Amino acid sequence: MIKAEPDFGAKYIEINHPKPNAKEIVVRPEAAAICGTDIHLYEWDEAAVNFTKNFQINFPLVLGHEFSGEVVELGSEVKNIKAGDWVALETHIPCGKCYQCSIGNRHNCQNMGLYGITYNGCFADYAIAPAEVAFVLPEGVSYEEGALFEPAGVAMRAIEEAAIQPGDTVLIYGCGPIGQLAIQMANVCGAAKVIAIDINPFRINMARALQATTINAKEKDAVAVVKEFTRDKGGVDVAIELTGSSSVYKNIFEMIRLEGRLVTVVHPSKEVAINITKDVNQKGLALKGVFGRRIWSTWQHLAGLVEEKKIDLLKVVTHRFKLDQYEEAFKKANEDACKILFVQNININE
Amino acid sequence: MIKAEPDFGAKYIEINHPKPNAKEIVVRPEAAAICGTDIHLYEWDEAAVNFTKNFQINFPLVLGHEFSGEVVELGSEVKNIKAGDWVALETHIPCGKCYQCSIGNRHNCQNMGLYGITYNGCFADYAIAPAEVAFVLPEGVSYEEGALFEPAGVAMRAIEEAAIQPGDTVLIYGCGPIGQLAIQMANVCGAAKVIAIDINPFRINMARALQATTINAKEKDAVAVVKEFTRDKGGVDVAIELTGSSSVYKNIFEMIRLEGRLVTVVHPSKEVAINITKDVNQKGLALKGVFGRRIWSTWQHLAGLVEEKKIDLLKVVTHRFKLDQYEEAFKKANEDACKILFVQNININE
Amino acid sequence: MIKAEPDFGAKYIEINHPKPNAKEIVVRPEAAAICGTDIHLYEWDEAAVNFTKNFQINFPLVLGHEFSGEVVELGSEVKNIKAGDWVALETHIPCGKCYQCSIGNRHNCQNMGLYGITYNGCFADYAIAPAEVAFVLPEGVSYEEGALFEPAGVAMRAIEEAAIQPGDTVLIYGCGPIGQLAIQMANVCGAAKVIAIDINPFRINMARALQATTINAKEKDAVAVVKEFTRDKGGVDVAIELTGSSSVYKNIFEMIRLEGRLVTVVHPSKEVAINITKDVNQKGLALKGVFGRRIWSTWQHLAGLVEEKKIDLLKVVTHRFKLDQYEEAFKKANEDACKILFVQNININE
Amino acid sequence: MIKAEPDFGAKYIEINHPKPNAKEIVVRPEAAAICGTDIHLYEWDEAAVNFTKNFQINFPLVLGHEFSGEVVELGSEVKNIKAGDWVALETHIPCGKCYQCSIGNRHNCQNMGLYGITYNGCFADYAIAPAEVAFVLPEGVSYEEGALFEPAGVAMRAIEEAAIQPGDTVLIYGCGPIGQLAIQMANVCGAAKVIAIDINPFRINMARALQATTINAKEKDAVAVVKEFTRDKGGVDVAIELTGSSSVYKNIFEMIRLEGRLVTVVHPSKEVAINITKDVNQKGLALKGVFGRRIWSTWQHLAGLVEEKKIDLLKVVTHRFKLDQYEEAFKKANEDACKILFVQNININE
Repeated sequence: MIKAEPDFGAKYIEINHPKPNAKEIVVRPEAAAICGTDIHLYEWDEAAVNFTKNFQINFPLVLGHEFSGEVVELGSEVKNIKAGDWVALETHIPCGKCYQCSIGNRHNCQNMGLYGITYNGCFADYAIAPAEVAFVLPEGVSYEEGALFEPAGVAMRAIEEAAIQPGDTVLIYGCGPIGQLAIQMANVCGAAKVIAIDINPFRINMARALQATTINAKEKDAVAVVKEFTRDKGGVDVAIELTGSSSVYKNIFEMIRLEGRLVTVVHPSKEVAINITKDVNQKGLALKGVFGRRIWSTWQHLAGLVEEKKIDLLKVVTHRFKLDQYEEAFKKANEDACKILFVQNININE
Repeated sequence: MIKAEPDFGAKYIEINHPKPNAKEIVVRPEAAAICGTDIHLYEWDEAAVNFTKNFQINFPLVLGHEFSGEVVELGSEVKNIKAGDWVALETHIPCGKCYQCSIGNRHNCQNMGLYGITYNGCFADYAIAPAEVAFVLPEGVSYEEGALFEPAGVAMRAIEEAAIQPGDTVLIYGCGPIGQLAIQMANVCGAAKVIAIDINPFRINMARALQATTINAKEKDAVAVVKEFTRDKGGVDVAIELTGSSSVYKNIFEMIRLEGRLVTVVHPSKEVAINITKDVNQKGLALKGVFGRRIWSTWQHLAGLVEEKKIDLLKVVTHRFKLDQYEEAFKKANEDACKILFVQNININE
Repeated sequence: MIKAEPDFGAKYIEINHPKPNAKEIVVRPEAAAICGTDIHLYEWDEAAVNFTKNFQINFPLVLGHEFSGEVVELGSEVKNIKAGDWVALETHIPCGKCYQCSIGNRHNCQNMGLYGITYNGCFADYAIAPAEVAFVLPEGVSYEEGALFEPAGVAMRAIEEAAIQPGDTVLIYGCGPIGQLAIQMANVCGAAKVIAIDINPFRINMARALQATTINAKEKDAVAVVKEFTRDKGGVDVAIELTGSSSVYKNIFEMIRLEGRLVTVVHPSKEVAINITKDVNQKGLALKGVFGRRIWSTWQHLAGLVEEKKIDLLKVVTHRFKLDQYEEAFKKANEDACKILFVQNININE
Repeated sequence: MIKAEPDFGAKYIEINHPKPNAKEIVVRPEAAAICGTDIHLYEWDEAAVNFTKNFQINFPLVLGHEFSGEVVELGSEVKNIKAGDWVALETHIPCGKCYQCSIGNRHNCQNMGLYGITYNGCFADYAIAPAEVAFVLPEGVSYEEGALFEPAGVAMRAIEEAAIQPGDTVLIYGCGPIGQLAIQMANVCGAAKVIAIDINPFRINMARALQATTINAKEKDAVAVVKEFTRDKGGVDVAIELTGSSSVYKNIFEMIRLEGRLVTVVHPSKEVAINITKDVNQKGLALKGVFGRRIWSTWQHLAGLVEEKKIDLLKVVTHRFKLDQYEEAFKKANEDACKILFVQNININE
């Protein structure tokens, strides 16, 4: 599925079976997921245009970066992976040479490539990828779960940076796929109570089913409700921002207790006006921005929780399509849906 | 219940209703628990004798320090507590003046008093306590749960110091009351798998019921089994030592992966010979000794988990007695039992 | 020195020798320093007006909160302090009962009093203060140094929160008294290079004398210079914001490397528009707001460095006045000056 | 310089110019240092024999692993390094595939090679090394300094793990080369006072010259002196064990304050009997074993301090020899000496 030019939509075309270079592998995707970034690029909205300011995109581009599949071919120097391995892919491709790479921050490399953006992606019958960013799936993990490791890794990283203390009240602001996963993770990583906020009843219902205490911010004064839930503390211990809306920040600061923590994950397209005096300094706020997953510690943390069934990644999947149904799939992504998968065989998990 | 002299046993005698000084409160205990320390003092064994080397004990001494009850009287300067409050008690009584107290380590004060040891305890109809170490129980927490806050706080502190990362495999070595509580806590504080080891089938069964993967170290080669469970990692990420046996250390070091963590809690009565080269330096081990609960952050963490029913403290209680049945209770403590409570009304939770 | 009403200026009047309540002490100030807050209150500018929105101020108010002196009288319940002690004062007065106080955040108490703002201050012959916030000065520390413990504690706290790694390049943005102190501290707390930015040549010269690499942001493109100094890293590891100007934020984000840290200390009076996407999320920024000093760990850290002469607090003092010269002193504060002291005997350190 | 067999001594022989494999480089050593491990291997003492139990050594073996030099030849797949680069070498050679490597612990890899032990070393005219463990020296760093990066990295790592808080009193137990370097580092990484203990007057004098407060443990009751220096705290905040003697542990525990930290670095050849109850649990001790340098963060931290002249690595060098004087050099290592270098030109720094 090719993004041919910087405009709405994409095409489904035949391309020749790609050949890997010495350090690449060829993977046959078995399951792939649509990410918010894919939607921005597909619809070519403001966020997509902003994206091109920070990252070099060459057209035509194969979209898609959340997937898992079987390794079918190896470049000549590839040693850590073998044909037949089931892998998922880290999409932040580190250079391995810069200062960030040298101190253990490969997830935020100074010369970073992005799979499916600066590099052709996975919405295709065969995908090429640098062997270095392939993560061999633990035994017992399905292809569909594997396809969700990348987005689930974002939720996992947010939880890591949230530094949840036992008994904390954790606020998940935004109940998209990352939010639904973060709810599950917070619940098994020390949180006593998880409060989830959204304005979409479909997603709020999903969050409630995952044991979150939910608030519909359209119907209720969310700040007041959060204050009520956290009386002595004066607010939540930790909040994770997952809406990408610049307008929620005022509220979110109000909802966090003194000396509380805020992790921001989703990228707002507008600047946010912040009262540093009141909401950062006098609040004693700790804020951490998240971009990507720690390589590979975040993946290992996630793999541990998935393998032992402490969390169920598939709970966020609401729809499955075959790849040639992509127009319907991208349409559905704007309706009542959570995570949407492209799979080889739609009945696989049903 | 009075420990009259440094010898086996104790007496049950009438004493006058005690009067608090300006900074003390009087509490009517509703539930109290027997701690390992109480057993050592009751039986006056080697550990009790060692204890007297580090802490000043005056006889006669009222035993007991794990309890909750209703505040019935206040000293003249007491302001944070009111009559009628339900409280549990922190047993480490800080001086408030030393260097440790000044930097936030009141739990390990340089001039620390110990409730029930250097200070008369709670196995009585009325107990006197410094107001400063009273913790008002959150609404909805029962007296029996309250009586377990002090020992559960030891498990909570061990979990805090264990610094569990999401997906970790956590080893609980020793399935007494603290171990059973630590299993529950590890399970909701990020562990993917909790392995519990003991040699007592009764306690191993309890641990299994709490979702631990159990090993009877008498029947199996525990090191080999742990290695099998943790193949790629080469051992557990974190171990918590709760046996107090100096002979388990060799094994426990074997069971921990490179750069893993060990938290030691229960006090062995003998020295432990440690191969620093192999088991500490080349292993890259991080070891932390635990004594007491952080005041009050550990309590608040615990309160959060209990209030929201993430853990159930009462699952460790196997027997209840009235206080005048203390001889039977202490006898039972050496048989198939876990936590034993003294309660006003034995049927209270049954 | 009394702030009689919410308007420009103050008066110097006779008041009766104050009497302490049971938990207070009376101190005879020997040295006191003018803080930026005092200047705002004296001049009754926008920042002062904003302040009254967050904190209750009663007039007439004795100004001043940075001082040291000798304890001359004790309230009836005071036990930690004795007459004759030399003390400095923590100005954040905690309630001791709230959630923040219970978990070790007394510096940011939910019901906090502020000495010299919600409580009468120290620009007077005798000052009353809660015994609880008095810090007994270590032996060998002078009154003038003692008067600087409170502001130096802000610099110390900023350094603590900066979590400097050995060899880091640290940016001090703003070379007022806190900045000058932070330069000294960064230099002995792991920084390899300290870069200091200001627009005032007088203060820039002071910073250079303290071994900072300085930039005059009026004369040079500070972002370009910082980038040049930090080539491989792409920016400084840590920045500390000490200007309180909302207009420096854009630059400061540019100057910080990927996954770098920002500590904000001085309160801007305007909101700051922040590009969360670029400057927080994709940068992987960690931001921490600072308000007050950790009680007493920050004080102990500072005392250690001062006692052993690792830093020299008096290097920030540029002028000394007697208290009745306050009009000249406040005027001088807006000219080429750094820290200004009120002292009993002007020749004391000259 | 070849270790021909597991017995005392070594030989100096001609070997052919070695050829690198695809991922190796050839370096011409310009300066190299003798490590304690080299001495053990040279003398083939008990420690050397113990070493062979944990690591596979093949004879003949070229000794030596602390060095720097110019890259003269590259294997066919080497990309990060170019001919002419000045490099130093990390001696812990990670496999890149194991669990430890995947989570950022390459310094303690599960399949680790050790340069100069399981891999031929650098006491030769040409040395072969895996390109992956070559660290390009920052501009302005000399070959002699470069040769000390590996041992200085051990001191740097110990300081990292010591987590020194500003104003801490830091104990360096053992004043060999690592100790002398750790003294310098502690002094610029937050310590207010550095106490250094040894029994060798030559090394004690060196430590004193580096601003340490020194104690000769043969002449004084070191525990009593440390207690005197740290009165209020009851002991040092942090201790770093650098003697490798099992007999100092009793004392070192005594010297550490409640809730203090101990970092152990040098490998004792005997087991150490530890009173877990008193010295770990009730003390609230945090202990961390160190093996190797974090790759590359420890190196970057060190490079920062060296580049900016915050520490002077050459202060530990007491003797320089040409490589064919190795017998004299190894003899000197057991006399009054600290770090001994093999250099191409003995007058280079004199």
